[in-house]
Amino acid sequence: MRRLVWLLAFSLSFPIVALDASDWRAIDPAHTLYLELPQGRVIIELAASFTPNHFQNIKALVEQRYFDGSFILRSQDNFVVQWGWPEGRAPKLKSAKAKLAPEWERPIQKGFTALDESDVYAPRVGFIDGFPAAQDPKLAVEWLTHCYGMVGVGRDNEADSGNGVELYVVTGHAPRRLDRNVTIVGRVVHGIELLSVMPRGTGEMGFYKTESERTKIKSIRFASELPATQRIELEALKPDTVEFKKRIEKARNRKDAWYKNSPNHIDLCSVVLPVRVVSR
Amino acid sequence: MRRLVWLLAFSLSFPIVALDASDWRAIDPAHTLYLELPQGRVIIELAASFTPNHFQNIKALVEQRYFDGSFILRSQDNFVVQWGWPEGRAPKLKSAKAKLAPEWERPIQKGFTALDESDVYAPRVGFIDGFPAAQDPKLAVEWLTHCYGMVGVGRDNEADSGNGVELYVVTGHAPRRLDRNVTIVGRVVHGIELLSVMPRGTGEMGFYKTESERTKIKSIRFASELPATQRIELEALKPDTVEFKKRIEKARNRKDAWYKNSPNHIDLCSVVLPVRVVSR
Repeated sequence: MRRLVWLLAFSLSFPIVALDASDWRAIDPAHTLYLELPQGRVIIELAASFTPNHFQNIKALVEQRYFDGSFILRSQDNFVVQWGWPEGRAPKLKSAKAKLAPEWERPIQKGFTALDESDVYAPRVGFIDGFPAAQDPKLAVEWLTHCYGMVGVGRDNEADSGNGVELYVVTGHAPRRLDRNVTIVGRVVHGIELLSVMPRGTGEMGFYKTESERTKIKSIRFASELPATQRIELEALKPDTVEFKKRIEKARNRKDAWYKNSPNHIDLCSVVLPVRVVSR
Repeated sequence: MRRLVWLLAFSLSFPIVALDASDWRAIDPAHTLYLELPQGRVIIELAASFTPNHFQNIKALVEQRYFDGSFILRSQDNFVVQWGWPEGRAPKLKSAKAKLAPEWERPIQKGFTALDESDVYAPRVGFIDGFPAAQDPKLAVEWLTHCYGMVGVGRDNEADSGNGVELYVVTGHAPRRLDRNVTIVGRVVHGIELLSVMPRGTGEMGFYKTESERTKIKSIRFASELPATQRIELEALKPDTVEFKKRIEKARNRKDAWYKNSPNHIDLCSVVLPVRVVSR
């Protein structure tokens, strides 16, 4: 009994209501990566609009099959899982660029859906194109934020040294200190549990020391490259809908019998961004 | 090169300086649990002072060897790993109590080390006895917070239904909504990477559906029950020291060559609480 009730109480699920179909947007197969592992498929939605140049570069990398046969290189507890090629074994770039100006922030634009909370790291937080994001009106910039599941671009010390050949996904408490320091190119929307359980590397910063520790990546493809029958069609709940706001309010003000003290607040990276599989 | 620099840049390590030995406190073996798994040892420091009644109950459970042969029951992605007995298989309690008044908050006392940040969930955050904590001066209460690695007590809907027979550890983004709703009894101080990679359960809320999915717990013992030669002696950096404050300031105001934008802030659950193994 304890187990069951606890289970329900901790759930972030909500009553099933008739949803307006327009509350959900189809995740564009042309902006969707399939990271194919021996364990299964991880699906990443790319923030093509926020990071157009990185999107193009990653597209060029995928087109040359750059990642096929590469590896999960690193799994650091409470931080990130990272993939790419081990030192000295990377294929030569074809049309992809070796350097790329960062796209970790941009001037504030229309289309920001605010979450009414003050934040340790940003004066305004919310959502851009369905991704968690923040704004600083004084600096007049906005950026995508390092929440669980967000995918970023590893780089050297030079700001323009990240080109997408090494990508990481956040698998721990949100490392918001990285905001506005790394270009975030997307978010895992399906199958993150295949990455988050990768055995932690025993090398420094969670890097794997030996080949045998590394998981080989079978391929990375755009969903749009695959025949429809081999795709997993996904939809995401739009943040600028009544339904989304309702869920936020329910998470803020808990009325479940289990909660004895309601948080009354929610932090950006605790907001669930619902994604559902479309069955036809 | 990219990998190396990135590696250094992301490190939260700091220059090696001569540390005042008194900056570190020995973690008391009488307050330390060894959770022995086939994969190795996980070490939990119990918040004996903050939750004295739960501490005594867990002590009674360990003394009757309640957990020996029990299981990891649940691994929910970006949330918790939980252990105890499957429904209907729990041994009878001997001296341990079945019900226990919650200890998820207490009146504000002396000994709170403040972290100078405003927080989404609490007006004041900081540390109590080396654990992350928060205070609300209006309510005149303080509590331990659900950061990564914190260990709490599962319960039913009734506030007094958590007695320590089911424990969980936070393995995802800090679920601070649980603060002041569950008694936090301690923190994993060693070996959390053995728990955080547990394959996610395919049942609802990450519960394992079948026996074969569950990892069996060999035993739970207090460190003080073992001969010194079989212990792992640990020390924790005290939060109320100059050294700790220095580290916080370095994490807030990044001067590394890698950082192009310093966060200037740090959230409570991003603060590293350093623990070191003492070699004699």
